Amino acid sequence: MALKISKRGSVAPFIVMDVMRAANEREAQGGDVIHLEVGQPSTSAPRGVLEATQKALMSDKVGYTEALGIPTLRERIAQYYKEYYGVSLDARRVVVTTGSSTGFLLAFLSAFEQGDKVGLTAPGYPAYRNILKALGFEAIEIPVGPDTHFQPTPQMLDELGVELDGLIVASPGNPTGSMLSREDLQGLCRYCDAKGIRFISDEIYHGITYDHRADTAIEFSEDVILINSFSKYFSMTGWRLGWMVVPDKMVRAIECLAQNLFISAPTLSQFGGVAAFDCRAELDANVAHYARNREMLLNELPLAGFDKLAPSDGAFYIYADVAHLTNDAQEFCKTILAKTGVATTPGVDFDGARGNHFMRFSYAGSFEHMVEAAKRLKVFLK
Amino acid sequence: MALKISKRGSVAPFIVMDVMRAANEREAQGGDVIHLEVGQPSTSAPRGVLEATQKALMSDKVGYTEALGIPTLRERIAQYYKEYYGVSLDARRVVVTTGSSTGFLLAFLSAFEQGDKVGLTAPGYPAYRNILKALGFEAIEIPVGPDTHFQPTPQMLDELGVELDGLIVASPGNPTGSMLSREDLQGLCRYCDAKGIRFISDEIYHGITYDHRADTAIEFSEDVILINSFSKYFSMTGWRLGWMVVPDKMVRAIECLAQNLFISAPTLSQFGGVAAFDCRAELDANVAHYARNREMLLNELPLAGFDKLAPSDGAFYIYADVAHLTNDAQEFCKTILAKTGVATTPGVDFDGARGNHFMRFSYAGSFEHMVEAAKRLKVFLK
Repeated sequence: MALKISKRGSVAPFIVMDVMRAANEREAQGGDVIHLEVGQPSTSAPRGVLEATQKALMSDKVGYTEALGIPTLRERIAQYYKEYYGVSLDARRVVVTTGSSTGFLLAFLSAFEQGDKVGLTAPGYPAYRNILKALGFEAIEIPVGPDTHFQPTPQMLDELGVELDGLIVASPGNPTGSMLSREDLQGLCRYCDAKGIRFISDEIYHGITYDHRADTAIEFSEDVILINSFSKYFSMTGWRLGWMVVPDKMVRAIECLAQNLFISAPTLSQFGGVAAFDCRAELDANVAHYARNREMLLNELPLAGFDKLAPSDGAFYIYADVAHLTNDAQEFCKTILAKTGVATTPGVDFDGARGNHFMRFSYAGSFEHMVEAAKRLKVFLK
Repeated sequence: MALKISKRGSVAPFIVMDVMRAANEREAQGGDVIHLEVGQPSTSAPRGVLEATQKALMSDKVGYTEALGIPTLRERIAQYYKEYYGVSLDARRVVVTTGSSTGFLLAFLSAFEQGDKVGLTAPGYPAYRNILKALGFEAIEIPVGPDTHFQPTPQMLDELGVELDGLIVASPGNPTGSMLSREDLQGLCRYCDAKGIRFISDEIYHGITYDHRADTAIEFSEDVILINSFSKYFSMTGWRLGWMVVPDKMVRAIECLAQNLFISAPTLSQFGGVAAFDCRAELDANVAHYARNREMLLNELPLAGFDKLAPSDGAFYIYADVAHLTNDAQEFCKTILAKTGVATTPGVDFDGARGNHFMRFSYAGSFEHMVEAAKRLKVFLK
């Protein structure tokens, strides 16, 4: 008898993966590629992390850990909230995860019932809606644009015509890098608390900001589920390590889910992660490097013809409105790669409806590469 | 407004975790504990894995990998099927996962729709039913006992009165260690294929067998989803690394799910994992050690009064029927820990209905500890 493949579990691929494959093929055939498509730092983990990991590798059995993470890491994370945000946090509420990915799984599964409606912005990180779909929840897209700084507002939620059970917000966001002001973040948290909407704050790009630090949503609500990761500011993508801060009432439910679904996060990464918080100088130098790339591109891209840019307050992305250049961003990005060797991501990954008028530049690479990319794009659009 | 916590996502904790907590408390207060409760090897990863990881740590950026895993690891796993089972396998069908845990998530999400019914044995690994529940699928328990070697049969499935969409089988199983014969495994695969039931073969304890090697289900069906892990035979629990072998038709669906849900498995673990397959001598020495523990306990436990033991064909578990000793295995295990310092797991973790008449001994620890445990249990039951 023919066996089915799940419809619920059929989710869209990341288009950026296809771009990366095309870029890799070009490189394999001897062509040069400048990578502005990948959403990860070009640096390795900081030196202190490498040393701590090396030590653990040689001395520890590397067995399972407690499902919520090793106590020293949970405590170090809690301490970081004091150091960085000036916020007191009980380590009991910290959950160590296998990257932000399992943070989202635990957040959604612990908070929502079958069919629940969860709001998210378009453009936004595509995995949100795909994870929600695969788990049997409903993703409700909230189209955002330059008029609200590419972020949702209470008014938008009121006018949505849908009773939300949850709302995911990222500030800085992906693909835009746009940030909510402290007041606007607080306003959204209060709105959600009043309406019984579970607020999920994706703070993965915190630490990579240029004008002012991002605020953490746990300052404004005790019911928020916060998701963060060591992949961006801490430059530890392949380590698959992240954390959540969860409401006190949800700790036990999330512990039981984590025991069953994941057992524990990678042990070596947890030992390495403890050291990451004492590597701030090295990590801030990475951010200074992003800042230099960003400033150069914000000057040069408009000269090349990319002059409608979303506010890139943080992260390492610039999201460009290219409606005046193409109606098919996917084809446009392919042509740019073929003609110039510059790999970029079409907006369709982030915004199904309007993404063909947008593209994303990631500036996590070297300054020299960014300068060369800007030069080639200028020539291409002339 | 008060915010809810998901009912669908409310799953049972692992009782063994509570046992471990009690054992750790006893140790912290200066009491001695002999650990027969933990389901993990007492050895670290083999030397070759540590060296390969060390090298990767010093030379690699440790970034994200392809969602299906690094090609060298997928190919090495495929080659292992030739070496160990004599089975040809296209590396395209190999999916590297973050432990067997994410293997189960990917298997269930890619194969089943909301409300689908998936059969599993009681006793069995408790995470199966808890993951299924959390994802919105229905776990259908199939009570098994000594009459069918603690494994399901086609006749049982016929008499179940439920149309299954899937069936999970583990051979060797947890908590019993019982194994299906080659003929019985083949029979189950054929039955499932004929009835349109997706067969999920949990092969995590392969390699840890005593009389004869376990057979892999991919020999008998192209529709089977195979789950394995580096946590048991390869002695790499905390590395969170596993793999699946999936039907050719499901590769792309599982790749898209993995991209969105997990991005990729831990990179250092993947580099280490490649080396694991060349460490067979060291790993087989671990198995010889388990064999010695097993033989001793199979002799001594009956003398102590534990004389109704499930067939411990593989893994490192002995599952004992203790109905003649207690009606409350959880209390019984607590008392044993308090009076003797021997930590064991009550059957309720593995079998909700009958588990209070059973307990599990794990013999992954040192021979000296096993001897001492048997001695103390003898004294206790006198």
